[in-house]
Amino acid sequence: MYNIGIDLGGTAIKAAIVDDSGKILIKDKVPTGSERGYEAVMKDMAMLCLSLIGKCGLKISDIRKIGVGCPGTPDKSNGILIYNNNLGMRNVNIRKELQKYINLPVFIDNDANVAALAESISGACRNTKDSVTITLGTGVGSGVVIDGKLYGGFNYAAAELGHHTLIMDGEQCTCGRKGCYEAYASATALIAQTKKAALEHKDSKIWEACKNDLDNVSARTAFEAERMGDKVASMVCDRYIRYIGEGLVNIINIFQPEIIALGGGVCNEGARLLDPLKEYIAKYKYTKEETPASKLVIAELGNDAGVVGAAMLTE
Amino acid sequence: MYNIGIDLGGTAIKAAIVDDSGKILIKDKVPTGSERGYEAVMKDMAMLCLSLIGKCGLKISDIRKIGVGCPGTPDKSNGILIYNNNLGMRNVNIRKELQKYINLPVFIDNDANVAALAESISGACRNTKDSVTITLGTGVGSGVVIDGKLYGGFNYAAAELGHHTLIMDGEQCTCGRKGCYEAYASATALIAQTKKAALEHKDSKIWEACKNDLDNVSARTAFEAERMGDKVASMVCDRYIRYIGEGLVNIINIFQPEIIALGGGVCNEGARLLDPLKEYIAKYKYTKEETPASKLVIAELGNDAGVVGAAMLTE
Repeated sequence: MYNIGIDLGGTAIKAAIVDDSGKILIKDKVPTGSERGYEAVMKDMAMLCLSLIGKCGLKISDIRKIGVGCPGTPDKSNGILIYNNNLGMRNVNIRKELQKYINLPVFIDNDANVAALAESISGACRNTKDSVTITLGTGVGSGVVIDGKLYGGFNYAAAELGHHTLIMDGEQCTCGRKGCYEAYASATALIAQTKKAALEHKDSKIWEACKNDLDNVSARTAFEAERMGDKVASMVCDRYIRYIGEGLVNIINIFQPEIIALGGGVCNEGARLLDPLKEYIAKYKYTKEETPASKLVIAELGNDAGVVGAAMLTE
Repeated sequence: MYNIGIDLGGTAIKAAIVDDSGKILIKDKVPTGSERGYEAVMKDMAMLCLSLIGKCGLKISDIRKIGVGCPGTPDKSNGILIYNNNLGMRNVNIRKELQKYINLPVFIDNDANVAALAESISGACRNTKDSVTITLGTGVGSGVVIDGKLYGGFNYAAAELGHHTLIMDGEQCTCGRKGCYEAYASATALIAQTKKAALEHKDSKIWEACKNDLDNVSARTAFEAERMGDKVASMVCDRYIRYIGEGLVNIINIFQPEIIALGGGVCNEGARLLDPLKEYIAKYKYTKEETPASKLVIAELGNDAGVVGAAMLTE
């Protein structure tokens, strides 16, 4: 028996047939085209699943369930996507829509939770029961696995770790509050921090790294300028890493997970990111040396986390 | 069958025989006298249990287990108090010490966790599966109950919600970091905020409320001065409540518990505290109106939470 995982994103619908260990047998994608309305998107999701089943020479009866991960707020118990901003969907019954075409159990959850589940089963957090996966991207995505299961709270909306305050009344966050972790530790925040430093320091090599056009600034720019020997860029990187670290200490004090996996493009910086973070955590975490400490690692599944985790979803 | 709960505090050892519903049959206390060394304290704990059993006309075989709650870091699986600052205890095997006198299963946990368990079983959070109890006292104590069980993380040290940042690099916290929730929302913090406001405003009625002696300032003083019509005190209260609220929003975004119980003396302020907190949470929580919202209530068990929760401890 196999499972199908679907990663419903703003630009593409990705799907894969996945075995129980999290190994992908086959994967494929089609454009989302959400402007066509949710019914067309749901039909394409179902057709993509059927084509994968066909290509593998499997039958629907070889598939146990379908899982769907997508940004937004899910009603997990009913398989309904309550709200998704960038797909323009509201109260879409994904379970019922998919079951029009394929009569299999359908489970849904948000993309950050799904990625955390994937890492916990076959990624950087495998062989642990309690883990947290943090994805530093446009926002700060997060999922918490407790005793092998995704933690959702009583309304399935928990584990929004990007939306705890790092600095009350600080930077404006997209959620409406000021000072959230996301407003300091996301890739978006790093880009803003890099641009601000460039504007304040006209002689910084950040300008060289972005070819004198701030529109070219990415989450890599400050690290690139630092490698060119630029002190301003170095300060931007150090401070950004401190922001990440401060939130990680909070997460450790709150959850004490066996392991935390960090994901997102910025993790390509490797030891430049991880080493000072480990040092920061060791220095500031609440528990002292007598108590076993959470490990910090880089997430492993990258773009596959969405389909693998979705395939692993259960009730 | 009954359970015994022991609340091992800095000044007193309290103990009670408690039934499975959390009802206290009998309770009593003796001075801790920790300066005598841990063996004398452990013996007194055991003797107190035996005297309660005798007074009730019960036998040891009528008791299922003994639970002990105390400040500090427990090793729950081995019943060892790893570290307790104000009792001066380090690596005390409470289980083994008590079993020298009474051959019953012994479980331990820290006092904030024990209080949260008590509230979830027979206090303000009864009939819920997921709850958080926050105690605003000398520090900010907290316990998280998930699916009816205390959440401890992989090392039993989790749920230190008082030690997440409200303002990075802000007020010095006792844990060594700066800007923790505890440094803004504890009763200790409110006292400091009240004193500071008094020093900055010599005409404030805070002075009248503390009889012109800042050593008299308690967590009630600012609220009392506010009732005298003092604007400065009112500002102190508003800001303190905002600090509490900011952390509660974080806790909701992170855990989405069905219910949060607030404890500690300051909760005697009732609606003056609770109403603006509810408003603040409704305004700033991450989830919007489509998603069921966590309830906020005042903890109910007060000083009994320690013995009741300890009696309810399990493996």
